[in-house]
Amino acid sequence: MNQLLNELGRNAKKAAATISVLDTDKKDEALLAVADALVANTSKILEANAQDVMAARNKVSKALLDRLSLDEKRIESMSIGLKQIARLTDPVNSLIEKIERPNGLIIEKRRVSLGVIAIIYESRPNVTADSFGLCFKSGNAVILRGGSDAIHSNIAIASVIREALTSVGVDKDAVQVLEDTSHETANELMKLNKYVDLLIPRGGAGLIRSVVENSSVPVIETGVGNCHVFVDETADIDMAVKIIDNAKTQRMGVCNAIESLVIHSGIAESVLPEIYRDLNAKSVILRGDSRAQAIISDIETATDEDYAKEYLGPMISVKIVDNIDEAIEHVNRYTTHHSEAIITKDKANADRFLKEIDAACVYVNASTRFTDGFEFGLGAEIGISTQKFHARGPMGLEALTSYKYQIHGDGQIREL
Amino acid sequence: MNQLLNELGRNAKKAAATISVLDTDKKDEALLAVADALVANTSKILEANAQDVMAARNKVSKALLDRLSLDEKRIESMSIGLKQIARLTDPVNSLIEKIERPNGLIIEKRRVSLGVIAIIYESRPNVTADSFGLCFKSGNAVILRGGSDAIHSNIAIASVIREALTSVGVDKDAVQVLEDTSHETANELMKLNKYVDLLIPRGGAGLIRSVVENSSVPVIETGVGNCHVFVDETADIDMAVKIIDNAKTQRMGVCNAIESLVIHSGIAESVLPEIYRDLNAKSVILRGDSRAQAIISDIETATDEDYAKEYLGPMISVKIVDNIDEAIEHVNRYTTHHSEAIITKDKANADRFLKEIDAACVYVNASTRFTDGFEFGLGAEIGISTQKFHARGPMGLEALTSYKYQIHGDGQIREL
Repeated sequence: MNQLLNELGRNAKKAAATISVLDTDKKDEALLAVADALVANTSKILEANAQDVMAARNKVSKALLDRLSLDEKRIESMSIGLKQIARLTDPVNSLIEKIERPNGLIIEKRRVSLGVIAIIYESRPNVTADSFGLCFKSGNAVILRGGSDAIHSNIAIASVIREALTSVGVDKDAVQVLEDTSHETANELMKLNKYVDLLIPRGGAGLIRSVVENSSVPVIETGVGNCHVFVDETADIDMAVKIIDNAKTQRMGVCNAIESLVIHSGIAESVLPEIYRDLNAKSVILRGDSRAQAIISDIETATDEDYAKEYLGPMISVKIVDNIDEAIEHVNRYTTHHSEAIITKDKANADRFLKEIDAACVYVNASTRFTDGFEFGLGAEIGISTQKFHARGPMGLEALTSYKYQIHGDGQIREL
Repeated sequence: MNQLLNELGRNAKKAAATISVLDTDKKDEALLAVADALVANTSKILEANAQDVMAARNKVSKALLDRLSLDEKRIESMSIGLKQIARLTDPVNSLIEKIERPNGLIIEKRRVSLGVIAIIYESRPNVTADSFGLCFKSGNAVILRGGSDAIHSNIAIASVIREALTSVGVDKDAVQVLEDTSHETANELMKLNKYVDLLIPRGGAGLIRSVVENSSVPVIETGVGNCHVFVDETADIDMAVKIIDNAKTQRMGVCNAIESLVIHSGIAESVLPEIYRDLNAKSVILRGDSRAQAIISDIETATDEDYAKEYLGPMISVKIVDNIDEAIEHVNRYTTHHSEAIITKDKANADRFLKEIDAACVYVNASTRFTDGFEFGLGAEIGISTQKFHARGPMGLEALTSYKYQIHGDGQIREL
C-alpha cells in the first residue's frame, strides 16, 4: 500500500468526521472565505499556472492549452462559483421522511454526507475549486487527483483553499491534492476502499472507462453522451430543424450535444433535405444508411462504429426507420444513457419514447442541450451521471449524500 | 465468457425491457397467479425439496437443515408473502419531483426500474419466491444463484413461478435460476456488467465479503451487524437492562441483534451487575475489558477480535468508557454500519450519538431489533443495506429502482 495515499486517506476520513457535522452557517462562512482567498491570491495561482502552461505549450493541442490556462477572469469565476455554492440549500441533515409507528417509535430518515469523495479529472484546473465547493457544502472531504498537466495550478489552488479553511477554523484536509500523478498511484486510489466512499471520474470516455474497469471503490460514471434526436412522422419540420441545429451545433464538444439522427421514413424526404441544408451550412458532415443516401447523395456511408460514436465535433450519423419500435430499438442499442429526444406531435409515441428509452434525460420536442444542473434549476453540478445506481442525470449536492434512519424511543423492545 | 450465463443475461435483459413498463394491475395479477400456483404445486416443490434435504442430511448442521427444509406451511407463507407484495405501492413511474422552468420546459423526475438484478444467496429456498416478488413488483428481471444445497428446491420453485407467469402472458424470464452452482460461475456472474445492473448478496459475512471483493457489477452490501448498545451515565437502569435483554436474546442469530455493550464508567457499577444477572440467566457469556472485570469477576477477557466480532450467538463484549466521545469513537471503530443504540436521558448526548454514529439505523432508548422493513412500516425488504451508496438500511421496493428525467417541451432550444 502506497504510504502517501494511505496518509491522504486517513487525513480525509478524519476531516470528514468533523465536516459532516458542521452547521450550514459555518460551511458557508468557509466557502466565502475560500472564494475571497482565491481572488486575493490571484498572482500566486497565475504563477503556478504559468509553469504548467509553459511545460505543456509544445506538447498539447491549442484547445487543451486553452482549457489549462487561467487568467484573472477565470479565477474570479471560480470564486463566484463558490459563492453560488454557498447560497445553495444545504442537503445535510434535511428530513426526507418521518414515520410514526403504533408502538410510539419515531423514525426520521435524514440526509447525511457520504464521507470521503475522490475525483479523478483531466486538465481543467477550475475543477479543483469547483469540486471542493460541492463536496464541502455536502459535508464531504475530497481527494483530488488532477492530471500532471495541471499539477502546479492544482497544488496552488488547493493550498489557497487549505489556508483559508484553517483561517476560519475548519480542518484543511477537507481538500487534498494527490501530488503524485502517476497512473500507478491513480490505480491505487481506485482501490482505496478503506478510506474512499465514492469515486467520480470527470473527463473523456477513456478516463471514465479506465476508472470503471479498475475501481473497487463505488464509481459514478459521468458524461459520455452518444445522444440522439428521433424525428417522428408527425414532427413539425421547422421545429425539428431548429432543435437539431441547436443540439448539434450550439456547442459541439459537450456531452449533451447530439451525435445521431433517427428519422421516420414517412417524413424523411421532406425533413432530411432541410436538416442537410442547415447542418451543411455549418460544415457538419452527415453519415447515414443507404435510405438516407438515396435522399441526399452527399451523405457518407455510416458504419456500425459511426452509430456508436461520440463525435464531439462536426459530424453526425443518420438512420432511417419505419416506425417508433425501430426508433426505440436503434436508440436503446447505441445510447450511452445520457440524453435522448423525440420530435413528434403524436402523444402516444412521445409517451412510449419517454418510458422505453433507457437514458437519464429523455426529451419531447426540446433540445438535448438542456441536460445541465443550472438549466434544470438544480444549481451547480459535479457531473452528469449516465448510470442508474445511486444518482442519474445532473448531479447536484444531493447526489453527494446518503441518508440514515434516526429512531427515537422511550424504552421500546420488539415482541415478536 | 460462460455461454449459459451469457444466455441467462440476454434473456433477463430482454424480459426487463417489457417488465419495466408493465402496469401495476398486470404485475399484481401475475404476483397473485404465482402465489396460487405455489400452493397448487406444493407436492411438486416438496418432492424436490426432499431431494435436497436427503442429500444434505449427513453434511450440514441441524440449524442449516431446518433452514433448508420446506413444508406445506412454509410454502403457504411464501404464497402469502407474494400476496403482500402485490398489495405494496408500485414505485415505478411515480413522480418524485416536478420542475417548471421559466422557458416553459416541464421536467418530471420519475422512478424507473433498475433492469436486471442478480441475487446470490445461501440455503433458504423461500428467498427464491421472495426475491422474485420484490424484483418483479419493482419492474426488474432477476437472476437467482442459490446454494447447491437448495438447488432442486430452487429450480422447482422457479419453474412453478415461470409457468404461472406464462399463463398470464408475462415473460417467464422475469425469473431465472442459475443451475450451475459452481464458484467459478458465481464469480463470472459477479462480472456480468453487460447484463446485470445490480448484485445483492444475501447470507453470512463470508459470502458478502467475497461478493464485494470479486464483483465489478454494482453491489449492495447487506446484513452484517456488529451492533452496539451504549449505556450512558444518565440511562434509566431498568430500561437499559430490558433493551439489552431484548436486543441480545430475543433472537440471537439475526443481524440486528447486539454483539457489544459500551457502558459509561459513571453508571457501570450500578448497571453492569443487573445486565450480567439478566444475561447470565439466559446463558449469555460476557467478555470485557479489565474495568468490566473489576465489577464482575465472571467476565472473560475481551480481545480486539471480540470487539470486532458478530457472534450471532450467546456471547457479548463489554467496554467501559468515560464519556460520550469515547463511546462514539469505540462504536465508530468497530461498527459494521448496521444498527446502534444509546440509552440516555441526556438530550445533547442523544443528538450527538444520532449525528455522529456512522450507521444505517441509530436508536435512542429503543432496541436495535426494530431494524426491519415491516417494523419500519415499509413492508417486505430484500435486505438491510450497510453501505451508504444508493440505499441504506431496510431496502424495500424503492431501493430496487432508479429514476429518469422526462422533459416536455414545445420546441425549446438552448441560447447560451
